[in-house]
Amino acid sequence: MKIGFVGLGAMGTPMARRLIEAGHQVTGCDLRPAALDALRAAGGTGVATAAEAARDVDLLWLMVVSGDQAEAVLFNGGDRGAAAALPPGALVVLGCTQPPAQAISTARRLQAMGLRMLDAPVSGGVAGATAGTLTIMISGSQADIAQARPAFEAVGRHCFDVGREAGMGSTVKMINQLLCGVHIAAAAEAMHLAEAHGVALDVVHRIIGVSAGNSWMWGDRGPRMMQGEPPVTSAVDIFVKDLGIVLGQGGLHKVALPLSSAAMNMFLATSGLGHGKCDDSQVIRAYRALNGDRGDRS
Amino acid sequence: MKIGFVGLGAMGTPMARRLIEAGHQVTGCDLRPAALDALRAAGGTGVATAAEAARDVDLLWLMVVSGDQAEAVLFNGGDRGAAAALPPGALVVLGCTQPPAQAISTARRLQAMGLRMLDAPVSGGVAGATAGTLTIMISGSQADIAQARPAFEAVGRHCFDVGREAGMGSTVKMINQLLCGVHIAAAAEAMHLAEAHGVALDVVHRIIGVSAGNSWMWGDRGPRMMQGEPPVTSAVDIFVKDLGIVLGQGGLHKVALPLSSAAMNMFLATSGLGHGKCDDSQVIRAYRALNGDRGDRS
Repeated sequence: MKIGFVGLGAMGTPMARRLIEAGHQVTGCDLRPAALDALRAAGGTGVATAAEAARDVDLLWLMVVSGDQAEAVLFNGGDRGAAAALPPGALVVLGCTQPPAQAISTARRLQAMGLRMLDAPVSGGVAGATAGTLTIMISGSQADIAQARPAFEAVGRHCFDVGREAGMGSTVKMINQLLCGVHIAAAAEAMHLAEAHGVALDVVHRIIGVSAGNSWMWGDRGPRMMQGEPPVTSAVDIFVKDLGIVLGQGGLHKVALPLSSAAMNMFLATSGLGHGKCDDSQVIRAYRALNGDRGDRS
Repeated sequence: MKIGFVGLGAMGTPMARRLIEAGHQVTGCDLRPAALDALRAAGGTGVATAAEAARDVDLLWLMVVSGDQAEAVLFNGGDRGAAAALPPGALVVLGCTQPPAQAISTARRLQAMGLRMLDAPVSGGVAGATAGTLTIMISGSQADIAQARPAFEAVGRHCFDVGREAGMGSTVKMINQLLCGVHIAAAAEAMHLAEAHGVALDVVHRIIGVSAGNSWMWGDRGPRMMQGEPPVTSAVDIFVKDLGIVLGQGGLHKVALPLSSAAMNMFLATSGLGHGKCDDSQVIRAYRALNGDRGDRS
């Protein structure tokens, strides 16, 4: 398949690489020249604009950070945007985490231009993108899902068809993000309480990893909570955005979400303390600011 | 080994059965006659009082609900309590979830009577107790741990030595319970938001089970959240107690725990609504009370 790929970040780069390895012809675009170099080294074509990436492709995959960025890529500049550059009837795959309503509105705008769209957010992080073991939550027409399936299966281990309407994929992803955000903050709260008791954090991490308190996030983020300056695989501000989507949707439907709100406050505080670009495991810094740094970091 | 076992509940009964299967001689006691019958059927000896269960044993294992119950079993009635009935130098294993300070004080009282104690709470629920795959967090003297190890290994897959002092096992268990309580409430919050969107809950449960939002509790309690009257494997009021221990300890050390507090409120509300004896998965009822029952329970 000829695939255009916009957004070669921590997730997008390994995904594009796997698509190339699966035999697809990938033309990618990103604002950072280093990302284009990496794509070229993997056997893809790097281009400077999303419109160039969209030209002549069967499928345009967007792995940008937000629904707003996706809209900008597709529609900004009008006739010079990526949507206008796509061949008639081409398929757009929206991989970003965004409010369900935004997925619906983008699908309608694309449809009005004679284009098709799948709402297809992913879960599994950088590790899952690299290993090709992502979970993908796909909604859209059955024919469109069937067309894109070879591409999905190149990057995902679990590709779920969650329904016929745009927005349904994003709804399931939002529910997943509620759990992810609460679980990261809960892991930080637990690690911080362990610090305050002078318990060795690596021992606690190992024990809870085989106990009922375990979570995917405890396994993934826990080790990075024990590091002073861990590498950034997903930033604090990404969870400010994602829990913002959850709470915004709760607001829309008048659903109180007390744990999500508490978790959001800890991510917000971490960002407000100046750590928004740090790895999201560093939400533990908000706990240390709040309660004092009791760190026995052994 | 000759083992006395007090508390043949949902956890204690399968644990005692595994001890018998491993070749130990088990004398058990419980207030419910049916529990004694089950023990006898499994090859153990059922007795009416904890003092009888303590007579002539090498090791007395307490799987009661709380530290208060453990104290009552051991010390109430003075010379007629279980501690007084134990042979000199016998080993007491405290398996309940209790505040670290209570584990320490019980250890001191036993020591003053010439007895020894291991602080050894467990994790893994009824499923883990039945399969013999519990995680046990043990603190106490190395010699005492070595003596009890064959018994621990009959019921646990992971038996961690977490330190020399009573209270250390309970501290690690408390940190595990913080995560368990928050994860159950978070699962209910996520399921409830899915209900409010009319998303099929079984589909969401399957997808998140292979996504980054997964947790041990999502896998274990999630299915019971979709049931109207699930069997009780652990009651709402148990988490009122366990999160009470977490928040009490936070109070003692002046550590604010915002997610634990939010989760506690949901368990408290569920109990206040009259569902304290229901399965803890039913914390979802507090969400339905709070936001209205939007249930598309498909």
